[in-house]
Amino acid sequence: MALSVVIMAAGKGTRMRSARPKVLHGLGGKPLLGHVVATAEALAPERCIVVTGHGAEAVEAAFAGEHRVFVRQMPQLGTGHAVQQAVPALPDDGITLVLNGDVPLIREATLRALVDACGGTKLALLTVDLANPFGYGRIVRTAEAGDADGIGAVQAIVEEKDATPLQRQISEVYTGILAAPTALLKQWLARLTNQNAQGEYYLTDVVAHAVADGVEVCTASAADETEVLGVNSPLQLADLERRLQRRHADALMEAGVRLADPSRFDLRGTLACGMDVEIDVGCVFEGTVTIADGARVGPHCVIRDAQIAAGAVIHPFTHIEGASVGAGALIGPFARLRPGARLGSEVHIGNFVEVKNSTLADGAKANHLAYLGDATVGERVNYGAGSITANYDGANKHRTVIGADVHVGSNCVLVAPVTIGDGATIGGGSTITKEVAAGSLAIGRARQVAFAGWSRPQKKAR
Amino acid sequence: MALSVVIMAAGKGTRMRSARPKVLHGLGGKPLLGHVVATAEALAPERCIVVTGHGAEAVEAAFAGEHRVFVRQMPQLGTGHAVQQAVPALPDDGITLVLNGDVPLIREATLRALVDACGGTKLALLTVDLANPFGYGRIVRTAEAGDADGIGAVQAIVEEKDATPLQRQISEVYTGILAAPTALLKQWLARLTNQNAQGEYYLTDVVAHAVADGVEVCTASAADETEVLGVNSPLQLADLERRLQRRHADALMEAGVRLADPSRFDLRGTLACGMDVEIDVGCVFEGTVTIADGARVGPHCVIRDAQIAAGAVIHPFTHIEGASVGAGALIGPFARLRPGARLGSEVHIGNFVEVKNSTLADGAKANHLAYLGDATVGERVNYGAGSITANYDGANKHRTVIGADVHVGSNCVLVAPVTIGDGATIGGGSTITKEVAAGSLAIGRARQVAFAGWSRPQKKAR
Amino acid sequence: MALSVVIMAAGKGTRMRSARPKVLHGLGGKPLLGHVVATAEALAPERCIVVTGHGAEAVEAAFAGEHRVFVRQMPQLGTGHAVQQAVPALPDDGITLVLNGDVPLIREATLRALVDACGGTKLALLTVDLANPFGYGRIVRTAEAGDADGIGAVQAIVEEKDATPLQRQISEVYTGILAAPTALLKQWLARLTNQNAQGEYYLTDVVAHAVADGVEVCTASAADETEVLGVNSPLQLADLERRLQRRHADALMEAGVRLADPSRFDLRGTLACGMDVEIDVGCVFEGTVTIADGARVGPHCVIRDAQIAAGAVIHPFTHIEGASVGAGALIGPFARLRPGARLGSEVHIGNFVEVKNSTLADGAKANHLAYLGDATVGERVNYGAGSITANYDGANKHRTVIGADVHVGSNCVLVAPVTIGDGATIGGGSTITKEVAAGSLAIGRARQVAFAGWSRPQKKAR
Repeated sequence: MALSVVIMAAGKGTRMRSARPKVLHGLGGKPLLGHVVATAEALAPERCIVVTGHGAEAVEAAFAGEHRVFVRQMPQLGTGHAVQQAVPALPDDGITLVLNGDVPLIREATLRALVDACGGTKLALLTVDLANPFGYGRIVRTAEAGDADGIGAVQAIVEEKDATPLQRQISEVYTGILAAPTALLKQWLARLTNQNAQGEYYLTDVVAHAVADGVEVCTASAADETEVLGVNSPLQLADLERRLQRRHADALMEAGVRLADPSRFDLRGTLACGMDVEIDVGCVFEGTVTIADGARVGPHCVIRDAQIAAGAVIHPFTHIEGASVGAGALIGPFARLRPGARLGSEVHIGNFVEVKNSTLADGAKANHLAYLGDATVGERVNYGAGSITANYDGANKHRTVIGADVHVGSNCVLVAPVTIGDGATIGGGSTITKEVAAGSLAIGRARQVAFAGWSRPQKKAR
Repeated sequence: MALSVVIMAAGKGTRMRSARPKVLHGLGGKPLLGHVVATAEALAPERCIVVTGHGAEAVEAAFAGEHRVFVRQMPQLGTGHAVQQAVPALPDDGITLVLNGDVPLIREATLRALVDACGGTKLALLTVDLANPFGYGRIVRTAEAGDADGIGAVQAIVEEKDATPLQRQISEVYTGILAAPTALLKQWLARLTNQNAQGEYYLTDVVAHAVADGVEVCTASAADETEVLGVNSPLQLADLERRLQRRHADALMEAGVRLADPSRFDLRGTLACGMDVEIDVGCVFEGTVTIADGARVGPHCVIRDAQIAAGAVIHPFTHIEGASVGAGALIGPFARLRPGARLGSEVHIGNFVEVKNSTLADGAKANHLAYLGDATVGERVNYGAGSITANYDGANKHRTVIGADVHVGSNCVLVAPVTIGDGATIGGGSTITKEVAAGSLAIGRARQVAFAGWSRPQKKAR
Repeated sequence: MALSVVIMAAGKGTRMRSARPKVLHGLGGKPLLGHVVATAEALAPERCIVVTGHGAEAVEAAFAGEHRVFVRQMPQLGTGHAVQQAVPALPDDGITLVLNGDVPLIREATLRALVDACGGTKLALLTVDLANPFGYGRIVRTAEAGDADGIGAVQAIVEEKDATPLQRQISEVYTGILAAPTALLKQWLARLTNQNAQGEYYLTDVVAHAVADGVEVCTASAADETEVLGVNSPLQLADLERRLQRRHADALMEAGVRLADPSRFDLRGTLACGMDVEIDVGCVFEGTVTIADGARVGPHCVIRDAQIAAGAVIHPFTHIEGASVGAGALIGPFARLRPGARLGSEVHIGNFVEVKNSTLADGAKANHLAYLGDATVGERVNYGAGSITANYDGANKHRTVIGADVHVGSNCVLVAPVTIGDGATIGGGSTITKEVAAGSLAIGRARQVAFAGWSRPQKKAR
């Protein structure tokens, strides 16, 4: 049966105290709404209708896409009013699933169960059992065991303030998420009123209309509280971030990744690991990262959009972005690989070394205080401490090509464009501006001069 | 009514296993006693009497100040004995508030409520409700509802060992903090005896004297356990540090700051943030730091005494101290800004770059492995990789002045004092010792020489 | 009475999803089995028999040692079967203690109590009280108070699935660890059968044989759950790692070390601290580290096999391995001390400085972007920013010797082997290839040349 999804994303989020619309705040490196849209679209709905309001332009710009429809809710007169705005965009048949744009960790399987429970004929509410249900709308059921599960049919959602002492003990609460036959939902939405203390149109009121119409109200259950928690403040956002990260950490450990401390692990994107991967404390992964068998990442590394081959060792305090690291390579500590760094097998990049847009062939080494930018480095090159590729002439970037087995001394400058032939040697302290022939020694430095008995400057009185 | 504060700060803190007096141990970057004194002085007392003992000189030196009086308790014969030492320094009227120098997180509002409860006529005890009151002195009240709150009047503080099984179930315990009419307090203190197992004079015994005198004993309540916890060991200190940091984190999040992980955030001083500030995991802030709207601080940064302007981005592993960062600047990763670094708008400071006592005008860049010390850098300067201001001649520091739009090549040395005119260019690998005219190119490097067919040294047998 | 220890270490650990045998997985920097073996050997047993199976070669290679015997269990047919393999290696008298190679945090005192309880005549089971005993074998005792402690004698271990509702409420569970008179244990092992659902030989069945034989079954208790937890998955490994680290942190704090956050502290080896040592957040210690009185370690440092003398300050982001730091030295931030770095008193090593296999005498300084490798540096030397010891000629490493009071300018290269005499000065930007006499000034750089009105390259259209 054709599925439509309506995602409420119009709220301002006053308590976020932010200029950014609430649903654009990031969780695990992705906007809140991005989580909801991704999960919704995993259900392959025919259309995904996003109800925007506060910051509508920004939200719509961020989420424009195929099969997505934006409708605006201005002003915001309640959750029922929000879904009413989507009515013109909804077909007359099929099922409509209503989601909250600020409830990001809802799971696909939970939504599938909810849609299945609806089945095109019932109103299906997503509920969750809470140890402390205070403040939530309780699910009140008939006393008799009414449905297949032997639980009484849903009669109403009763808000905290309206609940009897007995009802307050009910631990099953409504999550704000529901699925309904679209045709019936439209009828119920049309009958909503704002005759209440807040003067708003509440989506929850459809339950009363369903009951009045004799339409069965059934439920599906969220697996845990985490997937139905909403975000209304930075504190709630931080809490959900930790829950998401723990989810990530648990999934990785379940797959065999060894995390030194799951509570000090952050993934903002995707991380695919081979067997026997070890990740030490305090690491942050962003974008798309893959780590192959037996590779190890030391403490306090930040790695974004990178491929790390088997057996590589990433030492502490390493920052990698947009780079690939070959098998058995040793990187860091204090190394920085920038976009376009492509390191072969057994490459060594040591402390205070930066590599950008450069290819290092197998076995090349740059172990100390060096910069390799826009360079092509051959196999087994030893690139000396303090040496720099001067790739920028103040206007344009140029390329440095270093052949295999070249030995570049310390504190050299290779002024690009320049080529160093295979097996050449560059003397320490040289500035190289011209091609160096294969197998030759190039030196560009002044002769050492001595001044005996030199008197060093004296400390001036201040 | 005139308020005097007595702070007990004489204890040794044996379990701290430290050469430092207990109240000088740091919490959130400030001594324990500093927290108590600051909170006490927020009440604007007429005098603040600190009772010192162990390490008295050090404590008195650290806290000398107007309106502060130090009295010494030597030897230490109990809490009552401590307050007795303050008697000569106390006026005969007004209210005396007695605080513990090792209970640092007491809140000003709580103390105000306690002093108000005293009102100059009653003995007011600060109490707290504990889920697990084991070991604490319980507040025993009369059965009948005696006071305004409908709670029976306080009859006694009963210690754990003296408590009946019923009394042990009392969750309200005494915190060691009280306020009393000074005149009465003096009388009660004079009547204390040390006829007990420890042979000490206990301040809590004033309760019995008050009851005997028919003076009403009332209470005020601490909002939570945290504000009345004392520090007796490094473990308790670490526990309180985490509670303080969580308090800081919550306050910042409440104000809209987005913390990636509130449990990995440390503030030892004050942090003032604009709107939409984001702070990633593992950051440490010290001293006085301000971060303006929309600025972001990446993972694992350490920032002390700094001003960060709107929209600046501080990349991971950046260390800032005594510096200011302009709007939209990009700093790090692996950057170090030292005292006196003043960076304009859109300045870029990249990896392995150190800036000290230098001004960088708008748009200046030093992106790789460089040192700028005692320098004045003009707008849009590009300061090359590996370049160094040689600001120290072994005896004195000198200044380097670089004009606007200068391009400094790689691995240069600018030997201060030296001036580079606007728009000049310094060739890579140059050592610059003389002024460079505006618009000129300066080079100080040897010609490149080639030795064909050079034979590199061979690996020696060991 | 002679003690034999049998450690079961044959399991595969399927849920670890690792190519490594389970007992070789690391906890606190040491294999799981290494913890068990170390604790067992602290009891000074006559022999330690390790039952290997999966990955037997690797396990045996890792743990070969005096008094250790390896027996193989192939295939693995249960815990009883595992111990049966050890029978030929066991003497006929004395006590046998059976341990699990994947229960790493068992304490020596606990095992002593268990062996004492056995006393050579009883079967002694190690038990623990669990708040939630679900899934564990319950210790069922006789109703009457049978033994010295006034607790009924053990009758049986009843598994969850066989337990009555009343038995399920028993919180005392069996831990898998036992001690028995060797002669009796051998008899009981010989009587084990695999007539059960899994077709395995269970060690727990010896309890029934003991009861049948009228041998008293007694217990000793583990102090807490942590010491009897086993590792079957990366999640359990991470959980135990955190428990171990908390144990380390608590022990250090108990001894007076001030940890800024015990939950962000990692020790993989041993750390011996003097008085008034402070360790900030996020530090990782490995190998054998000593820190003397009053030394402080800043946030996010990684320190392995190092000696840090009194009063030294290790600033944030410092990486130390195989090095010693003198009294009052200042190291970092962003410093790297590599093996063989030996720093005297008051040495300063600043940002982006690497020191390897070098001795720095008292008061020497290398504050900025520098490399000291294979160098001997005299007292009070000032080693300039960007300066490098070129210790490697592409084939061999050579030594640089710098006398006392030498001033090395910025961006110098000292081409080893080379000697700089006491009090000499090296001009900035110099490459030094020849000996420099004491007290002299050496310069090796080209004269600065100016080209007026030079036209910088223009940005090319792409």
